[in-house]
This record gives sequence, structure tokens and C-alpha cells, in this order.
Amino acid sequence: MTARPQAKPFLARLNDLRSGALTPRILLEECLANIEAREGEVKVFTAMNIEGARQAADASTARWKAGRPLSRIDGMPVGVKDVIETRDMPTGMGSPLFTGWLSQRDSASVRALREAGAVITGKTVTTEFAASEPGPTRNPWDIERTPGGSSSGSAAGVAAGFFSTALGTQVIGSILRPASYCGVTGYKPTFGAINRGGSHDYMSQSAQGVLAASLADAWQVMREIGDRTGGDPGHGGLQGPSGAPPVQRPATLAFLETAGWADASDAAKHAMFEARRQIERAGIKVIDRNTSAQAAEAERAIASALPVSYRLNTWESRWPLNTYRDRDESKLSAAMLKRARDGEAMSLQEYREALAEREHARRIYARLADVAGACISLSAAGCAPVGLRSTGNAAFVVTGSMLGAPSISIPVLAEQELPLGMQVLGFHDGDADIFAIAAALMEILPAAQARRA
Amino acid sequence: MTARPQAKPFLARLNDLRSGALTPRILLEECLANIEAREGEVKVFTAMNIEGARQAADASTARWKAGRPLSRIDGMPVGVKDVIETRDMPTGMGSPLFTGWLSQRDSASVRALREAGAVITGKTVTTEFAASEPGPTRNPWDIERTPGGSSSGSAAGVAAGFFSTALGTQVIGSILRPASYCGVTGYKPTFGAINRGGSHDYMSQSAQGVLAASLADAWQVMREIGDRTGGDPGHGGLQGPSGAPPVQRPATLAFLETAGWADASDAAKHAMFEARRQIERAGIKVIDRNTSAQAAEAERAIASALPVSYRLNTWESRWPLNTYRDRDESKLSAAMLKRARDGEAMSLQEYREALAEREHARRIYARLADVAGACISLSAAGCAPVGLRSTGNAAFVVTGSMLGAPSISIPVLAEQELPLGMQVLGFHDGDADIFAIAAALMEILPAAQARRA
Repeated sequence: MTARPQAKPFLARLNDLRSGALTPRILLEECLANIEAREGEVKVFTAMNIEGARQAADASTARWKAGRPLSRIDGMPVGVKDVIETRDMPTGMGSPLFTGWLSQRDSASVRALREAGAVITGKTVTTEFAASEPGPTRNPWDIERTPGGSSSGSAAGVAAGFFSTALGTQVIGSILRPASYCGVTGYKPTFGAINRGGSHDYMSQSAQGVLAASLADAWQVMREIGDRTGGDPGHGGLQGPSGAPPVQRPATLAFLETAGWADASDAAKHAMFEARRQIERAGIKVIDRNTSAQAAEAERAIASALPVSYRLNTWESRWPLNTYRDRDESKLSAAMLKRARDGEAMSLQEYREALAEREHARRIYARLADVAGACISLSAAGCAPVGLRSTGNAAFVVTGSMLGAPSISIPVLAEQELPLGMQVLGFHDGDADIFAIAAALMEILPAAQARRA
Repeated sequence: MTARPQAKPFLARLNDLRSGALTPRILLEECLANIEAREGEVKVFTAMNIEGARQAADASTARWKAGRPLSRIDGMPVGVKDVIETRDMPTGMGSPLFTGWLSQRDSASVRALREAGAVITGKTVTTEFAASEPGPTRNPWDIERTPGGSSSGSAAGVAAGFFSTALGTQVIGSILRPASYCGVTGYKPTFGAINRGGSHDYMSQSAQGVLAASLADAWQVMREIGDRTGGDPGHGGLQGPSGAPPVQRPATLAFLETAGWADASDAAKHAMFEARRQIERAGIKVIDRNTSAQAAEAERAIASALPVSYRLNTWESRWPLNTYRDRDESKLSAAMLKRARDGEAMSLQEYREALAEREHARRIYARLADVAGACISLSAAGCAPVGLRSTGNAAFVVTGSMLGAPSISIPVLAEQELPLGMQVLGFHDGDADIFAIAAALMEILPAAQARRA
């Protein structure tokens, strides 16, 4: 049993930065103190550059003092998932094959963060190649529990106040699931909206996103990156206002059970029902599979999101996994070797069928936009499970990845006094809409936030 | 004045391989003899692995002897453009920043080639990061002339009989232009049809393709790669038969001038008109901007293909060029530094406008499929220009890249007794169709092939 972790929102302190009551260097030192206190047990980092971070914080301090910050995130302490390249730290990808690998360049997103004045403090633990084999990170709410994965260190570090935000990636549930388990905000943008250059998440539904201490921080980081480096080549990049989208109560939300519902704990279901009741009491109509034909159709279309996504990933992993086997297969986990073998056994035709199934689900789901502003569901089947060998169940949050749709997990539910996220799932390029709706839900549901003695 | 280069088609000798009259080792030694004779002046390779190639050729020889070749390209000597990773040779990308860089893995395509039994002989010269700054390669038809770029070594090496095929990449005109200048077949597949994993051509209209000694070789190499590694993540991969598409005379072809026509030499225009006349005499209807509203509309839509493509590339090059500048900008050419600066000066909004312009062109062009089986045009404004400082004019072949459409250059025209290609441009996923049509054109136009004393 440990003290309740305390995340460190950045934008909430913007006035203090402007007035000089707070400096980026002071903020960084607060983070470093948290790191000093808890990194030993939480194990967030694979590498740090404290000297570089202090230099960046001092430079930012000078800019704020001169009234010339580079952006609204100038001075924000940021962690970077260790599948994303950084010129000053190795990129190990959670694999012994890449331990100490120096790419000598920043990813597109990290380069943009530096341009915006952010303070890059370190690289955060990922599962092996952002898949399932866990790293050493523990959940700061209870170190006997998983932080979730694959963006394990990014989520745990935000929760523990090591940095205000951290970059993550998600192809199944790797941002929203750890966000749920660690009680922070997790945001996976519309597919393609954030440039993945220099990040080893090349798959057809993977996206780069963020773990954050607040909704506002999450939006601003992605916007500052998007402005400076755009989306993936061929995509128009993140759409929406330059500051946090204003609170907007939708007329209607669709409640989706998803395939995860069958796995959800009674307490999680109860928490979700309670939240739904509060939302309805606030005057928002909530439709579901029992009351809406479109919602029922969408539920059917997304029911196989997890197996379809695994099939797609398995084919898309044939390369580079075959080359990693060539190099030294003793350095791949049993799970990764199984994926490699499964990929070799798959045919291009089977892949095409999985692609068609995904396209079908996307078409059906898109129709829900006619009747609902967004969808809500649980972000996970329950609070973080005890044990570090599994990073948990992704059945709820894979939906957004399979659909390529933007999704957010907000920390407004609880189970056993541990955090549990609510998922807000939107429609293609409607990223700003789900931020506006999530902000409204944060207003409606504040009392449900997890508390721990 | 040198002897006429002699390419070495592979599939044409399949019967000899089957009968044992030819072995892959003998074939490789023939190639090595050509290399020995001319590499000193043509300068095709950045690296070779002769020992590895001989081992691969011997293994292939044993498989043919046992009647168990891995594929129809088992034993085919192949070159690999030096932006594409190979585990046994460095990947230098035509840049001093990457000289000697060992990625320790094969690209998706190279890994697939090895699975199919191909014999990888070496890495071939590319311009700097596959853009405009030339490497040392010379045109084997006349070493005072450029081989074209950016797949310079791949095209020159096929022409000189150093290997039967070579991997190339094209985002503007980097496969079809050197194919035209060197008198070989060049094929750029439909965008996304061949997996670009481990190849440094990440842009939104770049494609991996092939330079080849024959049409049949070009098709087979791409099919064998496509079967084993699919397309880019999210794409269904190359469509078409497992062997070379059978000859098919189309009812109608559309002749496109493209923006290149204004730059074309009188001799090139004359050669194209002559070819068109022969095609029409063979009973194929040829429409053009004067006789078809759809063709005229397509001409208008593609008129700005080159400037639109450059704008897209410029934005999409911001990263990683900014990180290369961070690293050591003295190792970037003046042209590359200019591109980096142009990219920094560009806004996301301007990029979105260029994307919209490209989308518009694609929509308009697609309608041509209603009235023509494919389009034909010149592949270049003339034969290879004298001089090595420029890789030539890409105004004709950028069309296929901008449209994401499959295109082939076949060596059926000539100027000054030097080779000149005819371009066959198809429609999305109609790769097999343009092979069938190109084969028909090769039958109709054999006499026009370049000859040199």
C-alpha cells in the first residue's frame, strides 16, 4: 500500500509560468524529486538525460522570463516511449536485440517537441517491440499490479508525477489500457494524424499518441507536434483548434459494450452503469444496442476487433520479425517467436480477408455518427490486475485501433479504490469533438474519480 | 564510343536452368565477368558481396539440380538500390551521413528475394537519399552521359549485364527515367503494392519497384516479393497472375503528352509519333487530348504533376532532414539543404492544399479507365543527356508517381541511336493489365529498339 500517486498537469500552471511564480527548471526539479523518490520501485525509465533536461529547462526558463515561449508547452517535462527514436538516448524497443541502439536522430514527434520547447527527460519502458512481453515497470498505485502495456513506462511515469505527458503508441490497446490502469488521460489520435517517422510502430492501425496528466495537456502536446511535423505522409494531420477544444455537451452518446463486456468485472460494470446514470441525469441521451439499430449494428461490426487486429498485426509483423530471427532468435521472447511463426503460416489471401473485415467494420461504425456525438465504454475490464507477467485485457480499447478512430481514456471511474478509465470513442478526424465531450464528462463525473488513502 | 550494352534476361533461360544446360553459378560468373570488364568505368556498385553471391548461386544450383527451385527466380542475379537495407552490406543512401551504415537486417523485399532463392550481388548507387544529387554512375551506352536517377546503379547495372534485375524506388521519376536512359525495362507498381519496410522511401507517393532486363523478369520479381511480404501495411499487395500476364492488345490507348511534351526533343517526339502510327496500324485505337474529352481533362489534371509532387516531397522531407541537419549539415548537398529550408518555410495548410490537388488529379484521371485500357507517352524528353551533374528531366514519368498508378517504361524507342523508353501508364491495381499491354507493344514495336554499332 503506497501513497496516492499525484500526476503533474502542466497547462494548469501556465499562469504561474507567465507570472514567473513557477519556472520550467523548478517544475523539472519537482519531477526529478518524484523520480528520486519512486523510480526505484516503479521502474519507468530505460534511459534518462538529466543534464540535457536541465539545460532544456533552463533555456525554457529564460524564454518565459523574456516573455517569448516557443509554444504553450515550452518547458513541459515529457517522457518518450522507448520505441521512439531520440538523438541523445538509446532506443531499445524493449528488446535485447536493440539494447543500447543509437539511431543518432530524433523521431518526427520528438524533433517537434524540442522545437516547441518541451523538456525531454527520458525514455520509458515498453513491452518488447510494443507487443505483449512486459518490461519491469510497476503500477504506481500498487506495485504488485501491472501498469498495463505497451506504453507501460509512459503511463506509470505520468501517474507518478515524473513528467506531465509522455509519448505512447497504440496498435491494439497500448495507450488507453495503461492510461486506465494508471489513472491518467490516454489519447490515441485518428489513424495517420500524427507523423510516425522514426517510431517503430509501422503497422496499418498503429498510431502515435500521448499519456497525460490532464485532457488539456494531452491535446496541446499532440497539436504542437502536429503543427510542426504533420501526420503520416499523405495524411492531412491532426484537425482541430490550436488550444484545448472548449467543453461541449453532446445531445446523444452511444454506449458500446464491445467484446470486452463479457470479461468485465461486476464492479467495473457497476461503475460504468453509475456513470451512465449520471450522464443521463445531466441531460445527455445515451443510446445502446437495445435502443438503437445503429448501435446494435456497430456492436456486431466491432465484435471481432481483437482477433481481426491480431491477424492483421501477425501478417504485418512477418517483416521485420523474420530478419530479427535471422539475427539472433534467442533474443526474442517466446510470444514474439510464436507471432513470427504464425505470420509465416499466414497467406496474403488471409491478410486480404482480414483487411476486408476491418473495412467493413469501419463502414458500419461510421454510420453511428448520424445518431451520436461519440461513443462511451469502459477502457478496461477492471482495475489493473495483480501481477506483472501480463499487461491485461485490451478488448475494450482495441475498438478505436481497429476503426482508426480517435479515442480517449479519462480517469473518471474506480474499482477497489483503484483507477479505471472511461473510453470516449469518436469518428474519423473528429479528435477535437471527443476532447470537447470528454471535458464535459469530466465535469459531470468528477466525484467518481479514484481515491486512495 | 563503347560496345552496345547487353542486358541479361533471366526467365528467357528458364528452360536451360531446368535442363541443367545452365546453372545459376554459371550465370553469376557471366555477370561477374561483365562487372570485371566494365564496373571500373560504369560505377554501378557501392558495395558487393561476391562470396555471398557465389554461395547463394551454388545453393540455387543444387536446388535446380534436385528439381526443387524455390521459385521461378531461384538463382536470378539481383542488385539492390542502396536506400534498401541488406544484412550483409552497408546501406549508404548516397549520403556521407550514412556511409558504412549497417542496419543488420534485410528490407522486407530483400528478405523475400532471399526466400525466393535470388542471388543478391551488391548494392547499387543512388542519388543522395534518392533525390537529385547524383552519384558516380555513368550510362553504359555512353559514359559521358547520365544513367538517370535516382536508381542510377540499378538501371546501369541491368543495362550492362551485371544482374538481370535490380530493386529501385520512385517518388518522382527514379525508376522509369533511368530505365529510359539505359534502355531497360522499368516498373513502378501501384502505390502500396510492394512492402517498403526497411527501405528509405517513406514518402506518400513513393513506391518500390524494379529495373529489369525483360518485362517477364520485372513482373516475376515483383510477384515473388509480393507473395512473400505483401504490400505496405494496410494494402492488399500486388494483384495479378503468378506468372507473366499474357499478351493482350487493348482496344484503345490514350496518348498523353503530359507536361513533359514542351521539353521533348524533336527526335523524341518524332519517335513517339512513329510508334503511335505503328500501334494504330496494328489495329489499336489511340485517343488523345484532341479527340477525347476525358483525355483532355486528364491532361489538365496532371499538368502540374511535377510542382505538386515537389511540394509534397518538400513537406514530407522536413523530417528526417531536420535531424540530419542537427547531426552534421556539412554532409548534406546544397540541393538537400535547400529542400530542408523550403520545407521549414512551408505550412501544414500548404501541404493540405497540395494533397487536395493530388486527390483531384487522381479522381479525374481514374475516369480515363472508362475509355482506354492504358495510357502511353514518352518516358523521357529524349535520350540520356550528356553530363553527370544532372540526372535529367522527370516531367513525363512523375505522372505515375503523382497518380499512385502503375507504370512501365519499355525500351522500344530511340534517339541518336541511344535508347528511349515508351511509358505505359495504367490504373490503380491494374498492374497486370499494363504488363499485358506492354507485352503487346513490344510485339508491335520491336524494330524501333535502339541499336548502336
